[in-house]
Amino acid sequence: MALFDTPVRRAVSDVQVLAFEDGQARPRPDRLVTEEPLEVRVAGPGQEPVAFAVTMRTPGNDFDLAAGLCFTEGALAGPDALDGIAYCVGPEQEQQYNIVTLRMRTLVLPDVHERRFLSNASCGICGKAALDEVDLRVAPVGAGPTVAASVLGSLPDALASHQRVFEKTGGLHAAARFAADGTLRETREDVGRHNALDKLIGRALVDRALPLADDVLLVSGRLSFELVQKAAAAGLTVLCAVSAPSSLAIAAAEHFGQTVVGFLRDGRFNVYTHPERVDVSG
Amino acid sequence: MALFDTPVRRAVSDVQVLAFEDGQARPRPDRLVTEEPLEVRVAGPGQEPVAFAVTMRTPGNDFDLAAGLCFTEGALAGPDALDGIAYCVGPEQEQQYNIVTLRMRTLVLPDVHERRFLSNASCGICGKAALDEVDLRVAPVGAGPTVAASVLGSLPDALASHQRVFEKTGGLHAAARFAADGTLRETREDVGRHNALDKLIGRALVDRALPLADDVLLVSGRLSFELVQKAAAAGLTVLCAVSAPSSLAIAAAEHFGQTVVGFLRDGRFNVYTHPERVDVSG
Repeated sequence: MALFDTPVRRAVSDVQVLAFEDGQARPRPDRLVTEEPLEVRVAGPGQEPVAFAVTMRTPGNDFDLAAGLCFTEGALAGPDALDGIAYCVGPEQEQQYNIVTLRMRTLVLPDVHERRFLSNASCGICGKAALDEVDLRVAPVGAGPTVAASVLGSLPDALASHQRVFEKTGGLHAAARFAADGTLRETREDVGRHNALDKLIGRALVDRALPLADDVLLVSGRLSFELVQKAAAAGLTVLCAVSAPSSLAIAAAEHFGQTVVGFLRDGRFNVYTHPERVDVSG
Repeated sequence: MALFDTPVRRAVSDVQVLAFEDGQARPRPDRLVTEEPLEVRVAGPGQEPVAFAVTMRTPGNDFDLAAGLCFTEGALAGPDALDGIAYCVGPEQEQQYNIVTLRMRTLVLPDVHERRFLSNASCGICGKAALDEVDLRVAPVGAGPTVAASVLGSLPDALASHQRVFEKTGGLHAAARFAADGTLRETREDVGRHNALDKLIGRALVDRALPLADDVLLVSGRLSFELVQKAAAAGLTVLCAVSAPSSLAIAAAEHFGQTVVGFLRDGRFNVYTHPERVDVSG
């Protein structure tokens, strides 16, 4: 089976479906969001690349994704540690579009790898270290902007107008960052919600725009712990979600000093943490 | 910061929010879906437990989740390999509700661990092995049932009537399995879509109900590659999703011989693969 032999290079894939409606089934063309594995490898100076992670992603902005993933997961310290990003080249010199290697001036992989995937804590201390580690990777964020309620209310429409692929497939998450006056600065889409945010953050890292302390983040779906921690790694202070946050997302945002706005739709929203950054009279 | 010192034992957490609507901000109580880390450990006969995975999950059905995760990720061969599941016990004999250990008669962890998280393939072969591996872990499914279109149309309402926590929080994914006549057999919820399916499959494993070749699966959201592969591990032949499938989900289902039904809502749906299991006249 050659699932991965002929990678589709587009964010949308064409398929034929049998559409059932009003008691009738008719064949018709349809479009799906493309999902493909991306293997991210890292290498220090003069070293052979080693695999850091495999993520299922929508092709496009792969270098942003690789940089963002390594940064938010603690394997890349910042833009100065980055020496280059490239697709892997195969034995016949063809580019391998599902493998990206980050060359780093300083590689911190081994620790991270152990910390993320392996825990040798004995049962006596019961993995306390493993759990505590979850929230210790990233420092609290800075002061950040104050955002008017009217600006917050305008963000979902601003994102939707840029979220093209979703309209075609119904299958994409989006992450966007805005200035405090509501100006859209950047947006990224992916079949995976983590990937959309990693792409956004990775682009900012490569552009040397980190930390994003003056920006407002909007994600198209729910807000989980991991999204909050990734946002904190990028210094993001105001996090908005169209849908619900989780309990741990709120606990983490409280810890990192971030403002969480949830259920942001139709001009309404809830503020869960640090409401001082929201100007409800504005 | 004691994010994890006092684990909430409920699927729903109470919070105070500042609700903004019609130009006014009012404090009011709200409910969030609970998200907490679960560390899953595995141990062979006479061995100390080692960490297999940490997943962010909604507390509840933790043993189902641990069994399902280990099974669908290849570390647990089946019910006969399982010797027991328990929460870890701390130094003062208190149960640690965020750490579960699976005792196994045969432990296959080391290979799986390497396969999932580490790849030492040199650049010359370009991770081909790593990518190909993705779809080789599970065997194709069996013949499975034929399901009437009218039955498929009835599934979302049947699931919704059992999805209680979602109504309170808007933050939960659900996975359910039905008989071919539409009878609901089991449902599980979680903040993570993978976890909801792992809980469903883990329960079936413990109940010695695997493979689930005669059942119809419904997931409340989108259908990704990983969900398709987990479903294949459980022998599920008919996979339905309320929202969109991805391209790789479809490619994998084609490979495993599964029927995929997407955008199943309001009596309408699309069939993406193996339509022979759908009776459109029924």
